[in-house]
Amino acid sequence: MKITDSWDEALGRTISIDGELIKEVQSKYQNIKVYDTKSFGKLLQLDGVIQLTEFDEANYHEMFAHVPLTSHEKPERVLVIGGGDGGIVREVVKHKSVTKIDLVEIDEEVIKISDEYFPHISSGFKDPRVTIHFDDGAEYIENLEFQYDVILIDSTDPFSVGASLFTEKFYEQLTKAIREHGMIVSQSESMFYNADMISDMKKFKTKYFGSVKYYYTMVPTYPSGTIGFQICSDGHYNPLHPNENYRHGTLGYDLGDLKYYNAGIHVGSFILPNGVKQWHT
Amino acid sequence: MKITDSWDEALGRTISIDGELIKEVQSKYQNIKVYDTKSFGKLLQLDGVIQLTEFDEANYHEMFAHVPLTSHEKPERVLVIGGGDGGIVREVVKHKSVTKIDLVEIDEEVIKISDEYFPHISSGFKDPRVTIHFDDGAEYIENLEFQYDVILIDSTDPFSVGASLFTEKFYEQLTKAIREHGMIVSQSESMFYNADMISDMKKFKTKYFGSVKYYYTMVPTYPSGTIGFQICSDGHYNPLHPNENYRHGTLGYDLGDLKYYNAGIHVGSFILPNGVKQWHT
Repeated sequence: MKITDSWDEALGRTISIDGELIKEVQSKYQNIKVYDTKSFGKLLQLDGVIQLTEFDEANYHEMFAHVPLTSHEKPERVLVIGGGDGGIVREVVKHKSVTKIDLVEIDEEVIKISDEYFPHISSGFKDPRVTIHFDDGAEYIENLEFQYDVILIDSTDPFSVGASLFTEKFYEQLTKAIREHGMIVSQSESMFYNADMISDMKKFKTKYFGSVKYYYTMVPTYPSGTIGFQICSDGHYNPLHPNENYRHGTLGYDLGDLKYYNAGIHVGSFILPNGVKQWHT
Repeated sequence: MKITDSWDEALGRTISIDGELIKEVQSKYQNIKVYDTKSFGKLLQLDGVIQLTEFDEANYHEMFAHVPLTSHEKPERVLVIGGGDGGIVREVVKHKSVTKIDLVEIDEEVIKISDEYFPHISSGFKDPRVTIHFDDGAEYIENLEFQYDVILIDSTDPFSVGASLFTEKFYEQLTKAIREHGMIVSQSESMFYNADMISDMKKFKTKYFGSVKYYYTMVPTYPSGTIGFQICSDGHYNPLHPNENYRHGTLGYDLGDLKYYNAGIHVGSFILPNGVKQWHT
């Protein structure tokens, strides 16, 4: 059968992937499907939108986690909102400076499905530094009395269960959740397909954070083949390249074999085509 | 109707675009279709493979032409093989140092269709420096008694009418067609989908050219959302960044408003993800 992305299909442009449905769950929050595909290994779909495939999930998860974590001088406390598949946590646990990782996922079924069908993606959940909270990300932040060095918001798209994570109110709350010089990164859609949304989000994030930059990764199975991130901070650490501590190995660890991230592509990922480069300044 | 890419559809992964067929021609060489699409303007398809859309053709044509032409100290003679739509020639004519542009296109019908349906893409053909030759690219090179500073090979894929442009023999012939310190750039497929082919081509190109580098651009309507180029030269001019003459405006012109290319993305386009960065060295 043909697997498509429901959002982009409605706009007359979708990637169409051949595969067989091997699991379907209707959770309290969303429809969850797992497919076995012809060219991309297993694929996870939430409410009709392709979330990841085994073929290219590292392109997304590595760039999401390692850009902020290598830019920060010494990241210790990390919060992941969404991301119940575990891909981001798997990358975060590679940073030995990190002492505490909280994951807030609203939908317990996503974690169960990932544990069963994508064990190499959910593998970081076994790390003793990780605590999983089944909660709404926006509510978790509202009641928080703890601060993080890095917050990673791995939301679905703004029309779905993740809608509250795209609001100005949420970013106002986040200012209380972040330690001095901390960094907040969020899934921020395609520079080619969602330029207006990215621009609008930059406007309200700039009210609360001195530095808001956009960077991208390439994910062939996502609409347009690319997706980006906005990274908010006070600008103390420069997010545009890895920190000296990372480059010189001062923290006493390296990230091992990675499929996508390297220090060069970290720098390159902030360099945008002419038509969209206004997000960079 | 749904427009797909026949090559990738066979592999169970294709972009599917909604549009209406507005023109179809069966030429001596190939099937040519023009569609009017829902999200990408007009679209050109050759033998079932999407060649360009109005939405993102600049991402391809600007990076194809401006990376070598700005890296060269003073490009004067330019040869374009294929590219009958005119997109590359439109970019080449922006370089005022260029005195002669030859376009070799096997299929006259592609040029006619582009003139009628994509006049803003074929516009460079009106430039008095341009001569169009209706010929097979490989044969044109074999009989050539003239040398170029920059040769741009805008072929279709290696299983189609453009197959002769992917052979080692063709690159051996090209060594006679290039001036000292000249540069040869060819369409070289997706780093995510065609890694083996890119690697094989690098191997035989390296026999004839001291420097063979891969760089990419992002084209949402191509399979995987990215496509790349191999740039061959003797290494005298560094292709990894614009030449001083370009950066300092010594040649007395600038490229005006571009949609994609800028000096930063020129540099960034050579920085590859970990999994494929072997092509860079």
